Amino acid sequence: MEKVTPKTLSGFMELLPNEQVLFNQMKETIQKSYEKFGFLPIDTPVIESSEVLLAKAGGETEKQLYSFSKGDSNLTLRFDLTVPLAKYVAEYYNELTFPFRRYQIGKVYRGERAQRGRFREFYQCDIDIIGDGELNIINDAEIPSIMYNTFKNLGLDNFTIRINNRKILNGLFEHVDAKDVAVDIMRTIDKIEKIGKENVIEELKTLGLNDGNIETIISFIEINGTVDEMLEKLSTLNIENESYKTGIEELAQVVKYIRLFNVPDNYFALDLTIARGLDYYTGTVYETFLNEYKSIGSICSGGRYNDLSGYYTDRNLPGVGMSIGLTRLFFILNDIGLIKAQKNSISDVLVISMVEDLSMSIKTANILREAGINTEVYFDNKKIKAKFKYADKLKIPYVIVIGEDEINTGLLTLKNMTTGEQERLSIEDIIKKI
Amino acid sequence: MEKVTPKTLSGFMELLPNEQVLFNQMKETIQKSYEKFGFLPIDTPVIESSEVLLAKAGGETEKQLYSFSKGDSNLTLRFDLTVPLAKYVAEYYNELTFPFRRYQIGKVYRGERAQRGRFREFYQCDIDIIGDGELNIINDAEIPSIMYNTFKNLGLDNFTIRINNRKILNGLFEHVDAKDVAVDIMRTIDKIEKIGKENVIEELKTLGLNDGNIETIISFIEINGTVDEMLEKLSTLNIENESYKTGIEELAQVVKYIRLFNVPDNYFALDLTIARGLDYYTGTVYETFLNEYKSIGSICSGGRYNDLSGYYTDRNLPGVGMSIGLTRLFFILNDIGLIKAQKNSISDVLVISMVEDLSMSIKTANILREAGINTEVYFDNKKIKAKFKYADKLKIPYVIVIGEDEINTGLLTLKNMTTGEQERLSIEDIIKKI
Repeated sequence: MEKVTPKTLSGFMELLPNEQVLFNQMKETIQKSYEKFGFLPIDTPVIESSEVLLAKAGGETEKQLYSFSKGDSNLTLRFDLTVPLAKYVAEYYNELTFPFRRYQIGKVYRGERAQRGRFREFYQCDIDIIGDGELNIINDAEIPSIMYNTFKNLGLDNFTIRINNRKILNGLFEHVDAKDVAVDIMRTIDKIEKIGKENVIEELKTLGLNDGNIETIISFIEINGTVDEMLEKLSTLNIENESYKTGIEELAQVVKYIRLFNVPDNYFALDLTIARGLDYYTGTVYETFLNEYKSIGSICSGGRYNDLSGYYTDRNLPGVGMSIGLTRLFFILNDIGLIKAQKNSISDVLVISMVEDLSMSIKTANILREAGINTEVYFDNKKIKAKFKYADKLKIPYVIVIGEDEINTGLLTLKNMTTGEQERLSIEDIIKKI
Repeated sequence: MEKVTPKTLSGFMELLPNEQVLFNQMKETIQKSYEKFGFLPIDTPVIESSEVLLAKAGGETEKQLYSFSKGDSNLTLRFDLTVPLAKYVAEYYNELTFPFRRYQIGKVYRGERAQRGRFREFYQCDIDIIGDGELNIINDAEIPSIMYNTFKNLGLDNFTIRINNRKILNGLFEHVDAKDVAVDIMRTIDKIEKIGKENVIEELKTLGLNDGNIETIISFIEINGTVDEMLEKLSTLNIENESYKTGIEELAQVVKYIRLFNVPDNYFALDLTIARGLDYYTGTVYETFLNEYKSIGSICSGGRYNDLSGYYTDRNLPGVGMSIGLTRLFFILNDIGLIKAQKNSISDVLVISMVEDLSMSIKTANILREAGINTEVYFDNKKIKAKFKYADKLKIPYVIVIGEDEINTGLLTLKNMTTGEQERLSIEDIIKKI
C-alpha cells in the first residue's frame, strides 16, 4: 500500500511524552495558581461564527485568521481568548456574578509566518476580572500579583513585571499637542537605546514637535530611579493635564496595593514606554520580562480596558487582565535550559514478573493503585532484561520484582531504579516507602 | 454603534462557570484515573494536513469534516484522537518506548446535523496501548478495568461494560459461508428485540442463508446466562472455525484477567452482538451502558486493532483502547440528573472589609493563600449587603469579615455561609477550620 508520510504541520508544537509531562505540569501549576485567587474556569469553543469573532478584528490580524465556510456558515478559529470572553460576558450577562473573575486556558490559532519559536497553534492562559459598570483600581494590582505568584510557582525567579498607565502617555501626548502622531512618537522613543538621544530629538522634530514639547518628552522618558522616585518625578514634570494626573494617581495606587499583595519591589518596575497597542487598553498596562533574556520579549502581558463587550452590548463592562502565552514560554524556557524534562513516565512503580502467572503481579498493582500509587505491570512475555530496559527508558523510579520466592514468602523485591538499591519488603512497607 | 449579537454556534457546548467547574472536575478525575495506570499524556494539534488526517477516512465521515485551505495547504480539524495517534506513533516511532501507553484528552470536530445532545465540538478522553509487533491479550482486560475504575471514580455505579470479540463473529460468518452479507446479518440480528425471532429468520432467508446456517446463527445469538455459562455454550456450538475458536480463547482470557483486575462480575458482561464497525477492530470490542439508561447508547467504547498505523508505516503496531465522549456524557448525566453542579465558586473564602482601608483584608488573604486556601477579597466599595450577596450567589463556603474590632483585636469574624454560624477566631484557627 502507498504510505502517507506522517508529518505534523510546521508551526504546531507536538511534544514527546516526557516533554508533554513537563508541559502539563506547567499548565496545571498555572491553573492552580489562578484558582488560588478564586478565578472561575470557562471553556469557549475553538470555532466561532466569523461575524461574532470578527466584530472587532481587522487589519493585520485578519490576514492571520483561520476562516472557512461550512454549509452556509462563515466560521473562524479563535485567535485569542479575549474576544470569546467579550462574547461570553455579553451573552450570559444575566447569569454571571460581577465582578466576574474568570480564567481560561486553551489553544488559539494565528496563521503567522512560520519561524522558530513562533507557533500557529498555542495555549493562552488568561485571567481577567470584569466589572459591571465599575471596577476598583485594586484589581489592577491584584492581577500582576497573581502573575508574580504564578511565575514563582513555575520555579522562575529572575523576572520583572513592568507596569505603566496609558492615561499618563495619553495625557503627555495631549499636553504636547501631538495626539495624532502618538504612534510615531512611541516608535521613535522605543529606539532611543539604539540610535541615541540626539537622533531621537531630530526624529521628533520631523514629526512637527517644537523644542519645548520635545524637551518635555525627553524629560519624561529620562525619568528613572526607584518606583517611588519615578512617581515623584512624574508629578514634578509640571504637565497640567487631567488624564496625565489620573494616570499617575492610578499608578501610585497600583504600586501601593501590589506591595500589599506581597510582591517584592525587585519583581516589579515602572516602565513609562509600555503602550501595548494603541486602541485597546485604557489604563494600567503590563509586560513581563525575564531579566537575563529581555530580547525574547514579554512573556506575560495585559492591562485595563474600559469596555470589554462594546461590540455586543451597550452595557459598560470594564476589565483588567493578563495572559501567558504558554506554548511560546515553554519553548523558550526549554530552549534556554531554564526547564528540563525530568520524568519520562507517569508511573511510580513498574511490576515485573519472573513467573508466567501474572496473578500476583496484577493483585500487587491493584493494591498499590488503591493506595494512590501510579502503577503499571509489564505484561509482555519478554526476557527479564527487556522488562528492566522498559523501566529504564521510561525512568520509572521503582520496580517491584515478583518471582517464586516472593509469591511463597509474600515479601516483594523493591528496586530503587535511581540508587540501584534492592530490598525485600511487605506490600505495606512498600506503600510506606513510595 | 451597530451591535453584533453575541451568540455561540449551535452544536457547541458552552457552560456557565458552575457547570464548567463540574465538567473540569470530571475531566480531571478521568485524567487522574488514566495516570493511575501509568498512561502518558500526548497533545496533538487540532489542525492536521488533510492528506495525513484523511489517509484512512472516507464515505460518511468525510461529509462531517471541517476542512479548509490556508495558503496552499489543505487542512482538516481532527475528528477523533485515533488517527492523530496513528500519525504520532508512526512519526515518533524511534523515540517511543513500547508498549506505548498513552492517553489524550482533547476536543475533536464533527459537523454532524445539530440535534439535542449531539455536539460538533466535543471532548474525547482516550486511552490506548500500542505494541511493537505484538501486544499481550492481558492488555485487552486492563483497558476495560481502567474504565471501570474511571467510572467508579466519577461516582457512577450502575453501568455494565459489554465485551465481545470480533474473531467470534468473523468465524461464525465464515462458518455459515456468509462473510459478504455479514453487515446485513448484524443489522438483522440487532432488530431481534423489536421485530421478534420469526421475522429475523425470514430476513435471514432473504439474505440467502440456508436453514441449517440460520439455525446456527439463532443458536448463537440466543446464548445467554452468566459469563462462564456463555463461554461454555460458545464452545459447544460445534462451529469448527479457527477464527471462532481463537475468539473464544481470547474472550476467556479477557474474562479471567478482568476479574484479576478486581472488576466485579456485575460490572461486565459478554454481548455477542457487539461489532463496532466492521473494518477497524479485529479482536476484543467494548461498549459501556448505563443500566437504567440503555437507550442513550454506549458511553465508552473501543477495542483491539491489528494495525494502528498501516497508512503511514509498514511496521506492525497492534493496539487496544477505549474512549469516553466526555461532552456527550456530561450532557446526558446532567440531563437525567445523575450529576448536578454544586459549586459556583473555586474560592473557599471571601474576605469582606467593613472599613475603607483594605490592608488587613489583603494581608489576611495573602496568609490564607500561603496556607493553600483559595481566597478572594471583595474590593468594590459597596454596601455590606451587596458584598454578602456576592458570596451567596457564588456559594462561597466561608466569609471572613474585617472591621475596626477585628483590626484592633486581631481576631477575625468567620461566617460559615452554609450554617450561618459566626465566630471570632485567630487567623491560625481559621486556617485549621477551613
